[in-house]
Amino acid sequence: MAFVPCSSFAPGVQPRRSAFVQTARPVLPVASRRSVRILSPSMVASESAKTLTQTGDQFIDDCINAIRFLAIDAVEKAKSGHPGMPMGMAPASYVLWNKFMNFNPKNPSFINRDRFVLSAGHGSMLLYALLYLFGFESVSIDDIKQFRQYMSVTPGHPENFETAGVEVTTGPLGQGICNAVGIAMAEAHIAAVYNKPDCEIIDNYTYCILGDGCNMEGISGEACSLAGHYGLGKLIALYDDNHISIDGHTDISFTEDVGKRFEAYGWQVINVPNGNTDVAALEKAIADAKACTDKPTLIKVTTIIGYGSPNKADSHDSHGAALGGDEVAATREYLGWGYEPFEVPQHVLDHYREKVAAGAAVEQKWNETFATYKSKYPELAAQFEQYVVRKEVPESIEQALVDAAMSTDAKATRQLSQLMLNTIAPLYPPLVGGSADLAGSNLTIMKGFGDFQKATPEGRNLRFGVREHGMVAIANGINQAGYGLKPYTATFFVFTDYARGAMRLSSLSRTGVINVATHDSVFLGEDGPTHQPIEHLASFRAMPNHYMYRPADPIETAAAYAVALKSDKTPTTMAFTRQKTCLLDGGSFEGAKKGMYVLSDDSESGVAEIILIGTGSETELAQEAAKKIRANGKTVRVVSAPCVDVFEEQSEDYKDSVLPASVPKSKRLVVEAGTSYGWSRYADNFVCIDTFGISAPGKDDMKKHFGMTVENVYEKAKDL
Amino acid sequence: MAFVPCSSFAPGVQPRRSAFVQTARPVLPVASRRSVRILSPSMVASESAKTLTQTGDQFIDDCINAIRFLAIDAVEKAKSGHPGMPMGMAPASYVLWNKFMNFNPKNPSFINRDRFVLSAGHGSMLLYALLYLFGFESVSIDDIKQFRQYMSVTPGHPENFETAGVEVTTGPLGQGICNAVGIAMAEAHIAAVYNKPDCEIIDNYTYCILGDGCNMEGISGEACSLAGHYGLGKLIALYDDNHISIDGHTDISFTEDVGKRFEAYGWQVINVPNGNTDVAALEKAIADAKACTDKPTLIKVTTIIGYGSPNKADSHDSHGAALGGDEVAATREYLGWGYEPFEVPQHVLDHYREKVAAGAAVEQKWNETFATYKSKYPELAAQFEQYVVRKEVPESIEQALVDAAMSTDAKATRQLSQLMLNTIAPLYPPLVGGSADLAGSNLTIMKGFGDFQKATPEGRNLRFGVREHGMVAIANGINQAGYGLKPYTATFFVFTDYARGAMRLSSLSRTGVINVATHDSVFLGEDGPTHQPIEHLASFRAMPNHYMYRPADPIETAAAYAVALKSDKTPTTMAFTRQKTCLLDGGSFEGAKKGMYVLSDDSESGVAEIILIGTGSETELAQEAAKKIRANGKTVRVVSAPCVDVFEEQSEDYKDSVLPASVPKSKRLVVEAGTSYGWSRYADNFVCIDTFGISAPGKDDMKKHFGMTVENVYEKAKDL
Repeated sequence: MAFVPCSSFAPGVQPRRSAFVQTARPVLPVASRRSVRILSPSMVASESAKTLTQTGDQFIDDCINAIRFLAIDAVEKAKSGHPGMPMGMAPASYVLWNKFMNFNPKNPSFINRDRFVLSAGHGSMLLYALLYLFGFESVSIDDIKQFRQYMSVTPGHPENFETAGVEVTTGPLGQGICNAVGIAMAEAHIAAVYNKPDCEIIDNYTYCILGDGCNMEGISGEACSLAGHYGLGKLIALYDDNHISIDGHTDISFTEDVGKRFEAYGWQVINVPNGNTDVAALEKAIADAKACTDKPTLIKVTTIIGYGSPNKADSHDSHGAALGGDEVAATREYLGWGYEPFEVPQHVLDHYREKVAAGAAVEQKWNETFATYKSKYPELAAQFEQYVVRKEVPESIEQALVDAAMSTDAKATRQLSQLMLNTIAPLYPPLVGGSADLAGSNLTIMKGFGDFQKATPEGRNLRFGVREHGMVAIANGINQAGYGLKPYTATFFVFTDYARGAMRLSSLSRTGVINVATHDSVFLGEDGPTHQPIEHLASFRAMPNHYMYRPADPIETAAAYAVALKSDKTPTTMAFTRQKTCLLDGGSFEGAKKGMYVLSDDSESGVAEIILIGTGSETELAQEAAKKIRANGKTVRVVSAPCVDVFEEQSEDYKDSVLPASVPKSKRLVVEAGTSYGWSRYADNFVCIDTFGISAPGKDDMKKHFGMTVENVYEKAKDL
Repeated sequence: MAFVPCSSFAPGVQPRRSAFVQTARPVLPVASRRSVRILSPSMVASESAKTLTQTGDQFIDDCINAIRFLAIDAVEKAKSGHPGMPMGMAPASYVLWNKFMNFNPKNPSFINRDRFVLSAGHGSMLLYALLYLFGFESVSIDDIKQFRQYMSVTPGHPENFETAGVEVTTGPLGQGICNAVGIAMAEAHIAAVYNKPDCEIIDNYTYCILGDGCNMEGISGEACSLAGHYGLGKLIALYDDNHISIDGHTDISFTEDVGKRFEAYGWQVINVPNGNTDVAALEKAIADAKACTDKPTLIKVTTIIGYGSPNKADSHDSHGAALGGDEVAATREYLGWGYEPFEVPQHVLDHYREKVAAGAAVEQKWNETFATYKSKYPELAAQFEQYVVRKEVPESIEQALVDAAMSTDAKATRQLSQLMLNTIAPLYPPLVGGSADLAGSNLTIMKGFGDFQKATPEGRNLRFGVREHGMVAIANGINQAGYGLKPYTATFFVFTDYARGAMRLSSLSRTGVINVATHDSVFLGEDGPTHQPIEHLASFRAMPNHYMYRPADPIETAAAYAVALKSDKTPTTMAFTRQKTCLLDGGSFEGAKKGMYVLSDDSESGVAEIILIGTGSETELAQEAAKKIRANGKTVRVVSAPCVDVFEEQSEDYKDSVLPASVPKSKRLVVEAGTSYGWSRYADNFVCIDTFGISAPGKDDMKKHFGMTVENVYEKAKDL
């Protein structure tokens, strides 16, 4: 079967309607095809039924069934997993990957590859089967036999850090489609920045498979509404409309008109009523989707979950559990699949592996295009190589951040954040980002760098609307799209609660996403407890692989940005104040980069009797209380703790130098306008807030109410 | 103006189209109306413009402007708040509350009142103005003058626990409309259970005002899709379509067709193109909404934000900040409002206060209806009084839970949870709940109690679909609807991340919601790190007013349910295992109800040398390791810690009896398959998991990988 490269269906070019059937391909002699089968009498008897219920083309059936049975057999061996979705979506996936997708199996990170996101991540075996069949080295047949086993590269859900060829980590429903929106936004931006009319170096598509579950999750609605607004024409989502979720038929909870909803978002919607066998319709749908350049497309592919399983198809029995030995045998019979478990017939494998050479050719052609580009546009090409290919962060930024910090007065740290963002912006083109409709409060506009909008995708300011969860999932996609973009998000700190599902995936999937979280305590004031974070600092400090920064002043804000900018495998959330803060005595850029450091210590021995630890706006309270205690004759060390997580990564020596074991926890006190929960690691005494906040101006009454005063810190600390 | 009680617009009865204009009302002599004004020359000059831009009816304009100026003046005095939304939605609110809503200002908890939810909670002054004007005792004019001030009953966002007449706490966008869906579900359920064809005791409506922000949030889509599915005909939402959000015009991020989206959900959608002045259209829209009994209705009320402000209307300048003195004056002039700040003219106040007598009459009539009901259906009436009115939890349940615990073998705690749910279900009709499409994994079906569906609202099993955030927000609404219902939700523990925004509101607004969170650790196995909680126990322990239970065995599971069931002002999240657990030696119902207790202590003094603390499935590890250590000659105390939050509420004496100060933290070790973060409060040593999980069967390899073995606990503990 001849490889039809994706480029033959360039945007605007209408492909032949029934290209599938018409395409010339090597027809194997019937004997050779049959000979590899082990046909039982009953299988022979059911041949006609099989023919009717498959595509009508034996070769294509074999290719599709190879995917199905890899999924079936792997789940069966693991006795765990989700066979039904891969069985239903095998035809669509085969058509998509074989006919349309540009990729190079030997270089999964080829920059101009089409991206594929399996938002319905529980169908991971679909993706592993595709990677194996198409010749990716990351997944061997032995790896598939190790599906979901200890230390395998084929984990239960696709994980980008385990398996080359997996673009993003999916599983938690709805995230993948949002990642895909982010990837498509990244593509649109990079294409707008770098493409030239006579030389386009970025022109790939983003494909996504999502299911009913993804469509029920609100997060997908957030991102898809935005995708429609942005008119992301190169985003194509295939909705596996199989009417089954874990609890049974979607009739019990999900009867909305999904297609109409996507039309309301501004998407093109195409229906494929028979996704089980109508490969021509699938092909036409994808081609039509590509032909629509100003809107994203949802292809509603109606399938039968567990297609081919005589007793478990169209039932949640095939959704999330192995079919069982008898049913696997019955499915083999029903689909006429006479091969052993994990056996892929050679003619099928040969066909799939044609993509190896084709993919290499695609990349080679791109290399030639880029060489032309480089000769015509050397400066842009150099920038492309620096930021998109090598993903470098200029060393000069750190000094610029320090200089900015030294040039400013004391301000609200959200204002300092604005200063740092706008210091970085002109020096570092990959920085893109914005707020969930709080740009004016979060202070996150990069001045002079325009809005990313449908007509201006080169803009770097993103307008997420009031969609915190979608925002962070989109940022995950932007970051992991492979174009070297560094996204930041922004909202009030308390509303990170909305985004937590995606923020955890930022951490788990090792992104470098930055989150700007302003209004970081009760001192946001009048908006009241619904808007006042209490447990949020603790909740992110508890999260693995997440830097939770809360800087106190300009130099610490600069340090937080310096760390966040260079951190490409750990996301950073930065909490900033609404209200003005002070300039720390002893504030240190290098110290803040280490997470905790000594601001002052008035002891002669070098280690004072008492340690006061502060973060953010409360560091000032620790400093002022220390002065009063010292005036009474006790020695005090003041420690600034902008980031506990980074501190924990320092050497034991460094940690002991900041918090010496000789000063026991009973002699240490933490001041922070947030929960004391978690601080016991460093101290036994707290001036913290363990209740919800109140609505009032963030002034004296409120400070007194919560004990956030120098006097109170002094009273609590002086007798330690 | 005659009060037209809501009941004259019973479902199906078409109200007069222009009832507003036709209704007889006392016409004040022009002189008397004018005489209360302080007209400036320019105001006289602008009279005609004013007339054109208002309703054309001076009396109605006065009523509407009274709302507008209370909001304007209160925000102005506070120098903080959101005047624009109340200014735009004053006409719709006035029509709704005056013409349609049944309530009794002197008894805000009248059981058959219509419920009103201000989902756009930042417009809180709209609600406070309505409560004051209609004669609720909770909000006086002095309270309005104290808007957003320390210790006022008029906080920045509506808080149900601060202000009688506020049904739910709103502000975080999208939550309120989900609460409203929950309230409408509760109404439908209670009506189905208690109403009789000849005697209906529950027949109220749920109204909600939501804005663009609410509509952008994914959570609202989740709940509204479900509302359409359930066909909640008595849910009527007014969408303030003002095209402005905080960052500016919604054109920058929100251009979808909201009406079409709601139609896709199965809602009736009605447009009111001029919500600023067309009160007749508003009245007809609400009447038409009530007439549609099998679908919820969205009334898209197109308004101008900040209506009446000559320079800030239709701009985000009026969204979230005071208008400023000059603009307030200009607005007074534009709208012809010659009254002093906070002054409500007597004819307006008299009109509003007619609702006091009318409301009392409504409740009196209901009392008569209920008396009839009681005589005809004494048993149901008694049940109604017990559960709906007095909201009692039968004392007998505790013993039933203990009995159930004593009757079972060791099982996965999720199975024990199923047992407890099904023990409670027949004894306690208010228990309703279900899962976000994981009922078969969470094991949360109450057998024999049917599904809540459009045709069967008496069912008690809720099918939320894959909508975790909407689920919990709906549960908050069900719980706070005032019908005494006790909702539970369910999902995998890790996916509480999706619901966190609503779970925080469960805590903040003092609900008694129960969350069943199964698959509570890495030991869920093959699904891998996306599905394995690590930081989640800590993240909820850090949250104020939230009980985080993790029981270890049957008796502790019974205790967790006993506490959760009786807790009506603190929500409870219960983490349950996928895998089998043991029967604890020394497991105690009363002990577990106190959060932590001593399982065993082999010292003669009563206080052992070492304390091992375990929770959930790891309590067994602590127990077994203790045996080995004891065999080596050291004394060990084993403490079970199913709920740190409840333990912290116990007396200091009790706490010291469990964790005596004489055994320092250096001699204590915690075993839990989750982050060590937070445990420093009780111990210095941990066998915990501070990284993300892995995909593998939850067997020996994985246990060894994470050190979750008796041997490892023994090794870490033996030398303490």
